[in-house]
Amino acid sequence: MTKDEVFINDCVKLAQRGKGHTSPNPMVGCIIEKNYKILGKGYHKRYGDAHAEVNAIKDAKRNRHDLKGAVLYVNLEPCCHFGKTPPCTDLIIEEKISEVIIGMTDPNELVNGNGINKLKEAGIKVRFGILEDKCKELNKFYVKCITEKLPYVTLKIAQSIDGTIALSNYDSRWISGKESRIFVHKLRSEYDSVLIGTNTAKYDDPELTVREVKGRNPMRFVIDKDFKLYKNNLKLFSDPDKAHTYVFTSKKKQAKKTHEGFSAIYLKEKKNRINLKKILRSIYKLNVSSVLVEGGGNLFSQFAEANLFDDLYLIVSPKIIGKGISSFNDFKINSLKKAKELYLLKKITSDNDLILHYKNIKNS
Amino acid sequence: MTKDEVFINDCVKLAQRGKGHTSPNPMVGCIIEKNYKILGKGYHKRYGDAHAEVNAIKDAKRNRHDLKGAVLYVNLEPCCHFGKTPPCTDLIIEEKISEVIIGMTDPNELVNGNGINKLKEAGIKVRFGILEDKCKELNKFYVKCITEKLPYVTLKIAQSIDGTIALSNYDSRWISGKESRIFVHKLRSEYDSVLIGTNTAKYDDPELTVREVKGRNPMRFVIDKDFKLYKNNLKLFSDPDKAHTYVFTSKKKQAKKTHEGFSAIYLKEKKNRINLKKILRSIYKLNVSSVLVEGGGNLFSQFAEANLFDDLYLIVSPKIIGKGISSFNDFKINSLKKAKELYLLKKITSDNDLILHYKNIKNS
Repeated sequence: MTKDEVFINDCVKLAQRGKGHTSPNPMVGCIIEKNYKILGKGYHKRYGDAHAEVNAIKDAKRNRHDLKGAVLYVNLEPCCHFGKTPPCTDLIIEEKISEVIIGMTDPNELVNGNGINKLKEAGIKVRFGILEDKCKELNKFYVKCITEKLPYVTLKIAQSIDGTIALSNYDSRWISGKESRIFVHKLRSEYDSVLIGTNTAKYDDPELTVREVKGRNPMRFVIDKDFKLYKNNLKLFSDPDKAHTYVFTSKKKQAKKTHEGFSAIYLKEKKNRINLKKILRSIYKLNVSSVLVEGGGNLFSQFAEANLFDDLYLIVSPKIIGKGISSFNDFKINSLKKAKELYLLKKITSDNDLILHYKNIKNS
Repeated sequence: MTKDEVFINDCVKLAQRGKGHTSPNPMVGCIIEKNYKILGKGYHKRYGDAHAEVNAIKDAKRNRHDLKGAVLYVNLEPCCHFGKTPPCTDLIIEEKISEVIIGMTDPNELVNGNGINKLKEAGIKVRFGILEDKCKELNKFYVKCITEKLPYVTLKIAQSIDGTIALSNYDSRWISGKESRIFVHKLRSEYDSVLIGTNTAKYDDPELTVREVKGRNPMRFVIDKDFKLYKNNLKLFSDPDKAHTYVFTSKKKQAKKTHEGFSAIYLKEKKNRINLKKILRSIYKLNVSSVLVEGGGNLFSQFAEANLFDDLYLIVSPKIIGKGISSFNDFKINSLKKAKELYLLKKITSDNDLILHYKNIKNS
């Protein structure tokens, strides 16, 4: 690694401390250095709070350091517009910092290179595109929302080696092991929301909360075109967190008698289905930047069919189940050339399970 | 690693040079050492040839070393019976070697500890059970044949992440990548034989030979209860290697007119199927110690059902195929507790594919 890469890598690590709390803002970490001595560090702690650059500069000043001639490292291009806080570029210029090293440019159209230009115009040396893939992966939720006005979608699938997620009677209890369940709870704590289909809600009666690790619960979305689920005594509609449950249902059900505790979002149905893209747009409008899709096979299939997912965690349990419900049971292609191509980003051993992190190669 | 482990590990590496040529004999490597100096090395090169110990002793003597007081390392217990060659224990005793370090005992009932006892009685120090799991994995074919009188069975499955091995029209061309195909050819060169089911023969028309790497072709077994396949112009029955093709068919077909070039093995059918264990017994009787099962879903299912496979190579291609033929399409359980439990031994990255080596946990 070059010196630039070492420091940007450290910025990424710092930034991650804000995981689960900055949404819809990005995670940002910042380090200020002069002659190999670190003068200050900071990260964006929570949506609405000070930016990473401000925190790092404050940290340096608290220790009475002079920032003149220092180098500032940050994983995302500093902002140059007035948002909830004043522009970071102005502060950097004011402090007479001489170099700014940036992981990735900010795709927000209010920034998108303008921050870099403003720094350069003030005579500051700027380098950018350092560990860019890593920086993009860190802020994949933010990048997706800003560029596509849709939340980031991750499918989470727990299956046997032969792709079975449940028996035909919908039994899927504990296909994966304890350590993998902890992994899933950690994921939930990092995503703004989870989404499930009707059958998964009905047969699994899941809580979809964060219990195995510390962290905040995600919002819970469930698709129920016929608006019947809430009549069952499901946890989603009756537990202490029910205010965070949202049902996507058909516009036809809008006149129905009022329900209690949870929310309903009414969308037009077409060909007996509620359009997936419309669901994602609604989620985006609720200021939700990420969705973890937790089942079942029909919903996974719809996401594959519509090419609307960004990545996928496949938890492969070391067993053969055979016939049952498979992970993409309703997805069909007529030629192998049309298979949905993925890219394996990472593999994680989790007790006896294997967790495979795949990215969707979108334009395939 | 201890000194014993380092040397036994080297013996295993030496032994592997005989891969594909020693069957039904085990692979054995031997190193003789004195005061940290290696005096001689040898391995069992090919069925019928000299044992590893004999080759190592010859090697040492060629270099005029005195073996008195030396330590002999070998991954498998030395034989103490007259087979195709005289007992190795006698030679070791004769040469006044003072210590023998053994990876694993030989499960052959003619040896099975008797080799160790004979050495001990002659005043030689013996240690055994060094890197035992590794030694057992090395000679898994041999151990299975000797202890169960059945060949070692490995399923080789190439599938999408969702467990699909072919479209409904049986199209399965190139689900996995080039590097994985090379891996499969290498496997074939190490197995005595391959076995496929009727549909795989009919729709894939595979050659099942070793082309992508150097190595000998395996024998080819195909199940064809109705004895019809050979009428199609399949490569198995018409290529230059057709003398190595064996068809398992129903006894009812025994009176059929003679066929040319390939062999037929007639077995009783029951409930419209030829019993899988009978097929394996027949293969064993042909002096074949290992079978690589290359498809399709029905045959894989039968092996899971009868619990007759030892391990499994799962080649996972990074794509979603959805509906089609899945790897265990004909295996069915009525409770998740009855899922066939496996153990993940090794994962190998192969271009974009992932190759997962699972062992069957037999008594599950």
